[in-house]
Parts: sequence; structure tokens; C-alpha cells
Amino acid sequence: MGRTLTYPKQSANTVNRYKHRATYDLGAIHSIINSSQVLHVSFNTGSSDPFPAILPMIGQMGSFDYPSATIDEPLECYLHGYVSSRIMNLARDREGEGLPICVAASRVDGLILSLTPNSHSYNYRSAVLHGYASLVTDEAEKLYAMELVTNSVLPDRWRHSRVPPDRAEMSSTVILKVKVVDGSGKIRDGGVSDERKDTTNDEVTRSVWTGVVPVWETFGEPVPSPENRVPEVPNYINSFISGKNEQNQAYSKGAVKVTLPPEEQH
Amino acid sequence: MGRTLTYPKQSANTVNRYKHRATYDLGAIHSIINSSQVLHVSFNTGSSDPFPAILPMIGQMGSFDYPSATIDEPLECYLHGYVSSRIMNLARDREGEGLPICVAASRVDGLILSLTPNSHSYNYRSAVLHGYASLVTDEAEKLYAMELVTNSVLPDRWRHSRVPPDRAEMSSTVILKVKVVDGSGKIRDGGVSDERKDTTNDEVTRSVWTGVVPVWETFGEPVPSPENRVPEVPNYINSFISGKNEQNQAYSKGAVKVTLPPEEQH
Repeated sequence: MGRTLTYPKQSANTVNRYKHRATYDLGAIHSIINSSQVLHVSFNTGSSDPFPAILPMIGQMGSFDYPSATIDEPLECYLHGYVSSRIMNLARDREGEGLPICVAASRVDGLILSLTPNSHSYNYRSAVLHGYASLVTDEAEKLYAMELVTNSVLPDRWRHSRVPPDRAEMSSTVILKVKVVDGSGKIRDGGVSDERKDTTNDEVTRSVWTGVVPVWETFGEPVPSPENRVPEVPNYINSFISGKNEQNQAYSKGAVKVTLPPEEQH
Repeated sequence: MGRTLTYPKQSANTVNRYKHRATYDLGAIHSIINSSQVLHVSFNTGSSDPFPAILPMIGQMGSFDYPSATIDEPLECYLHGYVSSRIMNLARDREGEGLPICVAASRVDGLILSLTPNSHSYNYRSAVLHGYASLVTDEAEKLYAMELVTNSVLPDRWRHSRVPPDRAEMSSTVILKVKVVDGSGKIRDGGVSDERKDTTNDEVTRSVWTGVVPVWETFGEPVPSPENRVPEVPNYINSFISGKNEQNQAYSKGAVKVTLPPEEQH
């Protein structure tokens, strides 16, 4: 398309703090969502209860209507998770536009240990989407989303497991589709950033160690279940694990080395 | 105290699905919150905007009034994070009881790869709190919370950094205190669980590898900043990293081996 698509800035999604780290690019935001194992989904329960609810769910960006759409194009967010019946009933009851929800994902890439507690930080990536959630009722779209979500846990797992789901499995599975209204992301990378009043204080700089501790998620050796009858761990599992471990580690170590102009640090 | 304190079950926090994995124990819930590097905090913005907001924040359970309170006793949740002025203004405007918010933390401990997509799952721990957030105005309590939160990122970091914060740092730091009304947690551990229709199907069991991939967070070798003047990485940092890596790995590998009665699996 030759241009970068961005979400509109609205009061709900405008990042007011550390603007330089904010992104409204669809590609960056969708990538953070898609690489997160758990999404936090918030909604109002509509009761007299004043608290919004948060559910941890599994989800993935995709497009059933345009399955070849790339990560930086408009996509829907499909959710499938540890879903109390409450969010499903709420979404079911909302005819028309759907249930207003917020979807968030965050991950920590490093601990920024600077001279003074106030300048401590994380290297991190976070993304937030706002949109309207409704139940997927079309059978083909539901199957599409189930495959999308299963393969987000482990690439290529769907076709290596017992599929298609039977009638009972299809009806017990509930998929929410979120039509995204706006979104935003924040990315912090780089090293330590301190203020002049501390960096010029010998007593302080001589006594406080400063630097970054990279943090990443590690996938361990697969542990076969006692009932497993496949003798070798299949290659699509082993290569996912080694690839992901390498990639995660490389990202968090690489993030340390990013150099920002001084006015954009902190 | 000789007994386990639990949060009251109310409509807002009652876990309807997989009851066997639910916990209302203060100790279990507070531990999940305290061991999470990022909390997701949800609140309503009060505008015409229908979407709840979610902010990633850093937080920790504690008690300023009873600093010797243990993890399984009633505690407040102190939040300090990448805070847009919005949540602070909303909390400031709410005189009296404070801003109703929801605090959530989740972590994945393993991928459960079973015969059919529907029985796939994660080993995981998640916790949710509901409560009323207000700004901490008392200087001593603010300092207490700042130290608590800093040391949650890296134990003992506070006294090894340049403290106390100066006047400007104290006034630019905002701490939210959440008076917790209720809470709940969910923990899934164990191995693969499949239905009889699949475990008795030779064609399926011969072709689908089943088992668990343990997942944990790894802290890497500390990278000194170019300005760092302390020659060796201090011991409190190295021992945190090695201890945490061992503990995280042991938990996720240990979780695989937990055996639940068949009716509690899935």
C-alpha cells in the first residue's frame, strides 16, 4: 500500500505521557497483541457493581473476510479464553454494535537500573485496543478463529492435532470478535537515563551500579504426557521452541543497545 | 492466626468456570500480584466514551499502617506506573471512597498440548482485585510505597540507589492506594487432560504428540551502562538473578508434575 496505516487519535487512546514512545501504527500494535500469550480484556458488567471486570484471555488479530490481510492492515481481534459465561452473555445481549471492551497486552524486556529510584524503568512493549465485541455465529468464521488462536499458542499445532472439532466441541466453544475502533502502543527500549544532578555527583556514581537486566520468556524442553504415544517430539514443536527462545533473547538483549536522542530518554 | 483468610465471594469476583482452580485465599492472590512485574489496571474514564481503560502499572501489596503484616493478611495495593494524568485526575476528583478499579495479573507457566484443540490449555496463575483507588498524600506513606515498589522490581535496590528522593522527585511521583473490596485467583497446573473419545482412538493417539512445554521468565546477564562506575555487579543483583531464574524454572517444571483427580483436570 506504500503507506503506514495508523489508528486515529481519540481521547480514549491518546497516550499523554512519554509521547515519543507511543505508536499508533497498526503493524506495531497488532504485533504486540499477536505475540502475547495472554491478553487482558476489560468490560463493564452492567450491574450495580461499580468495578470494570478484567479477564485473561487468549486472542489473535485476523481477518476472516480478507484472510490474506497482513499485520499492518485493518484486522479484527478474535478472543477465546478462560471465559466466564458473563462476558459471553453480555456480548450476546448487546444486539447491534456489541459490548464495548478494552484489550491490553504488555511484556517486560528489561529492568532499567539507574542511579535513583525515580529514573528506574522497564524496557517494555504494550498495546491497547478499544472495540465492540460480539459472538461469532458463522460456523466457518468460528473454525477460522479457532485455528488462528490454536496456532498462536504453537504455530502449526492445529493441523497436527485431532481436527476438525466435532459438533459438541463446536457448540461449547465461544469466540468473540472485536471490531477495533482505536488502538495505541508504547515501546520503551534503550539503556539507563539519569539526570545531570546525579550523573555529576561522584559520591552517587561511585556507589550505585547502573545498567540493564534483560528479561525474556523461555520455553523449556517438552515433557511428554504419560499417555503420549508419539516417540519423538515433532520438529514443528522443537523448532518453535528453539526459534522463539533465540528470538526472545535477541530482542531483549538488542533493546538494551538502542540509543535514543537524550531528550527522548527516560 | 491459625486460619486462612479469604476474600468474600461476591458477584464481581466469583469464578464461575473451573471452580476447582479458583482461590479466594488472600495469601495466594497477593503472591500472584506481588510476583508480577506488570499489573493491568482497569477503570472507567467517566466521559461519554463507552470503553473501560486499561493501563499497565507497577504495583505491590503492602500495609503502611501494619508494616509487619504478612502476605496472607489484609493488605492494600500500591500502584506506581506509566500513569497518564487521567487516572490520577480521576482518583483525585473522587473524594471520599476513591475511583473503582480492577487490578489483574496473569502469567503463563506452560503450554498444555493435548490431543484436540479444545483440550489445549495453559498452566497459569492469575489474580484479580477490585477496590477503590485514591492518591497517597501522606509523605511518609508515599515514601513507604516508593520503597516497596522499587524493591519489587529488584529486592534491596532502594537502599543501594540514591535515596531519599528530593523534593522535586517526591512531588512528581504519584502513588495510588487501592483499598481492596474483593479478589480472586485462578491457578492451573498439571499435565494434559483429554476426553475418552480421543484417548481411546488409536489413530489419534498414534499421530498427535501430547505433553507440556514449560514456560518461565529468564533474567539475563546484567549489562552495565556506559556511564556505570561500579566495577563489579553487586551481589544483591547477581543473587536475585540466579535465585529468580532457578525459582521460575523450578515452578514451571514442577507444575507439570502436579496430579489432579480426573474430575478436576482439564
